[in-house]
Amino acid sequence: MKKAAFFGMFLCLFGTGTFAQDKEVVEDFKPSSLNQAGQEYPMVNSQGYARFRVIAPEAKSIKASLGLGGRGGTTLTQQADSTWMGTTEGPLDEGFHYYNLTVDGGKFNDPGALNFYGSTRWESGIEIPAHDQDFYALKDVPHGHVQQVLFPSKSTETSRRAFVYTPPGYGNDVNKRYPVLYLQHGWGEDETAWTNQGRANLIMDNLIAEGKIQPFIIVMTYGMTNEIKFGGLRDFDIKPFQTVLVNELIPYVDANFRTIADQPHRAMAGLSMGGMETKMITLNHPEVFSHYALFSGGIYAPEDLKNHPNLRLVFISAGSKENPDRVNTAVEELKEAGYPAVSYVSDKTAHEFLTWRRSLYQLAPLLFQK
Amino acid sequence: MKKAAFFGMFLCLFGTGTFAQDKEVVEDFKPSSLNQAGQEYPMVNSQGYARFRVIAPEAKSIKASLGLGGRGGTTLTQQADSTWMGTTEGPLDEGFHYYNLTVDGGKFNDPGALNFYGSTRWESGIEIPAHDQDFYALKDVPHGHVQQVLFPSKSTETSRRAFVYTPPGYGNDVNKRYPVLYLQHGWGEDETAWTNQGRANLIMDNLIAEGKIQPFIIVMTYGMTNEIKFGGLRDFDIKPFQTVLVNELIPYVDANFRTIADQPHRAMAGLSMGGMETKMITLNHPEVFSHYALFSGGIYAPEDLKNHPNLRLVFISAGSKENPDRVNTAVEELKEAGYPAVSYVSDKTAHEFLTWRRSLYQLAPLLFQK
Repeated sequence: MKKAAFFGMFLCLFGTGTFAQDKEVVEDFKPSSLNQAGQEYPMVNSQGYARFRVIAPEAKSIKASLGLGGRGGTTLTQQADSTWMGTTEGPLDEGFHYYNLTVDGGKFNDPGALNFYGSTRWESGIEIPAHDQDFYALKDVPHGHVQQVLFPSKSTETSRRAFVYTPPGYGNDVNKRYPVLYLQHGWGEDETAWTNQGRANLIMDNLIAEGKIQPFIIVMTYGMTNEIKFGGLRDFDIKPFQTVLVNELIPYVDANFRTIADQPHRAMAGLSMGGMETKMITLNHPEVFSHYALFSGGIYAPEDLKNHPNLRLVFISAGSKENPDRVNTAVEELKEAGYPAVSYVSDKTAHEFLTWRRSLYQLAPLLFQK
Repeated sequence: MKKAAFFGMFLCLFGTGTFAQDKEVVEDFKPSSLNQAGQEYPMVNSQGYARFRVIAPEAKSIKASLGLGGRGGTTLTQQADSTWMGTTEGPLDEGFHYYNLTVDGGKFNDPGALNFYGSTRWESGIEIPAHDQDFYALKDVPHGHVQQVLFPSKSTETSRRAFVYTPPGYGNDVNKRYPVLYLQHGWGEDETAWTNQGRANLIMDNLIAEGKIQPFIIVMTYGMTNEIKFGGLRDFDIKPFQTVLVNELIPYVDANFRTIADQPHRAMAGLSMGGMETKMITLNHPEVFSHYALFSGGIYAPEDLKNHPNLRLVFISAGSKENPDRVNTAVEELKEAGYPAVSYVSDKTAHEFLTWRRSLYQLAPLLFQK
């Protein structure tokens, strides 16, 4: 199931398209690429259907939360061999989906699948192979490293975690310095999302191997969004996270990594609620960032940017099943007002990670151009 | 529950001590430090009891695998509010334990707990606070980074994953070079174990902050042990992993990190089956490693080491509930034969991670001394 849009701020369609209920299901199911080692189920077929199998011989009812968008899910039925099995009624969107199982009224993860942090908990994940999956595939190219960093935070009185992607070769040429993208996850997620679900490191490795981008560092940290309840957005205060990011994390990264530590070489992007944070922080700190990007996370209006003389790029994206017109219109208005704005609409995807993988892939070549 | 000893090679007690069944349970339960964000259960009390609570209103039976060692587990009973609850019959060993829930005959993880890779799957984890937990606590000291590395492996035709701990300050002084410890997990675990369950990075950060050790790099990769079935040890072939480690990973690490790339500055250690791998590889390659350490993972006999003129250290450890006499006797024999051997027995622990956290803590100050 796609991740719930945050707080209903965006018109987000929950359905994964109209299911063709009478469609013939092609029996070419294979284990999902996100299964735990050696696990056959869940499976996916070439049409994008998912099939679940769970062992719980004495259970009364089992349901997977994926299948009819936000409305239903897939009911599993007990088989002759006492396992439980069920197939979605129709194809799912291409890409990554979170889900869970309801077993006799309790919510559990699928023992067959790997877990991913979303909706403020570790959830099962499944991958429907996308026609364009090559851009985020693990290939035989030089790979960057993803570093777990524990940086000191006085404002929150703890060590906080971030992940830092350094491009291939970072360890070899100790004189080379790099621009930095600060990249935020969405509501209910954390700093693991962009590499685990988003495959940001592999997207970068592939773009760099093809010579399509200037290598840069990516920094991902927890946006402190999970404590905010649905409906509590009115009370949202950006200051605690802004302080952590701008006053604590950026100085740490500039001290411990070979960055080009100035505004022209610093970008910020975020998905969904991370987009809202990106908008707030970039508007508050035009002296810190030069490139701003919102993935399914709101828009900038021309009047927002009037005191941003050193702005280099505004990038706004969404899935075609979200509200692409709003994105396109906003970017048209920014362009007319003379701002360097770019829009991107991900085809046939909603408020979900394939939209954001593609958004990063589209954004990266536009960053830090001379 | 403690991790099963691998293949019964070691005399390993499965019980966590004789349970004092009539002991009064002190009602000072607190959430385990390894719970998912915001989750109250599982809980632990000051005596080391664990208490589980699971929501599954229509379930027939729920059992947690922890409680009576390998023999029983803890049966949960349904409460008036329809939740399921159970408390271990006695205290558990201090430190980290894997467990899972059996819900109506199916094996699931506890939705309240974080997951850790053990027994060839992601399992729930719980932490019983240890009296000496300070040495692996997250403190306000400079922290090293843990880097995820994808290194090319021709012999297995893929990119393989390793994690590399670099000490605090590694990013600052680009001229400083470091010795390296190659550190292996046990059967059923993977390259995530030593930092997630073992807290190796925090143990190092704390030792370095106290000036107790020479900073060094730690490299952790998957030992290819999980494919081996119980009973299949006779057919175990070290060569595939040895090739990956010695011919592929070490050259990658030496090329991409600022190592001191010679035998005197390279150590290998492993726990349980990782100890067996360490023994085999160090005996095959005395020209590569100078310090050898086995944690609950076998012993060296004097005759094993007769062609190892440049050996600097042999370290052998186990939990006091395993077979400490075997460790102590082996080290006495090595010393009598003139080898630089050190033994360590972890008090009141078995074949489990507190034994291995303590073993690393004891080993680190002995490595790479002038």
